[in-house]
Amino acid sequence: MGCRIRESFVKQTFMATLGASLASVEPGEVVIELGYSEALAQQNGFLHAGVTTAVVDSACGYAALSLMPEGSDVLSVEFKVNLMAPAAGSRFRAVGRVVKSGRTLTVCQGEMVALDSGKTVALMTATMIAVARP
Amino acid sequence: MGCRIRESFVKQTFMATLGASLASVEPGEVVIELGYSEALAQQNGFLHAGVTTAVVDSACGYAALSLMPEGSDVLSVEFKVNLMAPAAGSRFRAVGRVVKSGRTLTVCQGEMVALDSGKTVALMTATMIAVARP
Amino acid sequence: MGCRIRESFVKQTFMATLGASLASVEPGEVVIELGYSEALAQQNGFLHAGVTTAVVDSACGYAALSLMPEGSDVLSVEFKVNLMAPAAGSRFRAVGRVVKSGRTLTVCQGEMVALDSGKTVALMTATMIAVARP
Amino acid sequence: MGCRIRESFVKQTFMATLGASLASVEPGEVVIELGYSEALAQQNGFLHAGVTTAVVDSACGYAALSLMPEGSDVLSVEFKVNLMAPAAGSRFRAVGRVVKSGRTLTVCQGEMVALDSGKTVALMTATMIAVARP
Repeated sequence: MGCRIRESFVKQTFMATLGASLASVEPGEVVIELGYSEALAQQNGFLHAGVTTAVVDSACGYAALSLMPEGSDVLSVEFKVNLMAPAAGSRFRAVGRVVKSGRTLTVCQGEMVALDSGKTVALMTATMIAVARP
Repeated sequence: MGCRIRESFVKQTFMATLGASLASVEPGEVVIELGYSEALAQQNGFLHAGVTTAVVDSACGYAALSLMPEGSDVLSVEFKVNLMAPAAGSRFRAVGRVVKSGRTLTVCQGEMVALDSGKTVALMTATMIAVARP
Repeated sequence: MGCRIRESFVKQTFMATLGASLASVEPGEVVIELGYSEALAQQNGFLHAGVTTAVVDSACGYAALSLMPEGSDVLSVEFKVNLMAPAAGSRFRAVGRVVKSGRTLTVCQGEMVALDSGKTVALMTATMIAVARP
Repeated sequence: MGCRIRESFVKQTFMATLGASLASVEPGEVVIELGYSEALAQQNGFLHAGVTTAVVDSACGYAALSLMPEGSDVLSVEFKVNLMAPAAGSRFRAVGRVVKSGRTLTVCQGEMVALDSGKTVALMTATMIAVARP
């Protein structure tokens, strides 16, 4: 299972652009980690909300894919993100978890934690769809 | 008005990392454009949803800031994104518009259009908050 | 087309409980109207957000159903609502519109307007799914 | 604390219209229960999504109010609901919990459980705002 997720993660060039790496893959739960870089900031020097969203979205998508049948690919249908604290710190962990796994749609919740402070900086609820792998 | 938005945009190093540029700033409406790059892809080669979210979020945030009093900064409280089509193409335009401007909170709607096809690839609704500039 | 929507609307007993009525059914756009009643209030006497959500959700769902094949039923997958002004007034109009019609999923946007003031009191973005009619 | 929440709940006439009652009030967590009634249905006889939203929204709003200073009232800024299973059954429990309590804004998560089956039928993430009591 982890294998196809690791293969897909490598194809997400944007994860490499962000410096994000897959930290763990379990059935229904995926963790991605990310270090701070000056190239990823919003106007006050914190991580841009788009960076946070990108890694939590990938964590949620791969958590969903981990429970889908072989031959599936996963696409994000929609997500909602609450930004609860500035993404301040040197290292961040994004966790995505499946909360409802269906044949077509999977609902996930995810969060981003700033590891220096332990603060949750963002929460996501996402709907993912299983499609045939192209 | 455009001046403080242009100054803030330059501080968003992540916009430069994405290759995004501020295309227009009007009161209540901001446009950001972005070219495709192989470094911004998800697993099928389309723009990653995090890239789309980043530029539409910045467009919405600056649209909100454009109507806020001098000395304000803007932060994203939350947003919701529907991904309606793969972000396929060579060039993209993100538009953010204020739909309700309040003293504390501003509600914006935004979209990302793939300029080659004319397709809307994503819709955002966002809540922004005015804070004192740090 | 309007016929199956009118039949389904009548089965939504909650619409009758709210005193809501179907005002118009066009392909991709449905309007529901509602009068104020003291039985529908939140703590300050305005319409409860759940009332607003209910009628805009039904308007969006039926807008989606209006473009689905015969034999389909529609279910709400998820929605997001921004409450932009107190739902004050004597009469309200909810409009639901399809913004992206797919084979499985349909994306709609809706709003509730207070007819006395002309103010938009709420905006919704919703994802609807087509299922076989039970 | 429970006192002002119970007083406000009684003013929410819509809760009485739904037959909903306040089951418990703790700092940061409020539970509302609801029995099924034929008057609350969507087209297949399950609880309408607007009913579910109404009670989870009230549970989240009062959870937020429970941590706000005396003299505050609470309003919903926005919420997002994922409908994960048909709201089938005879009795339902809505729980609202504060996940981030701020001076102006409070972020809550809520859920509705069908008590017969134990199934979670809906998840909500909501942003609440503290205002001076009118």
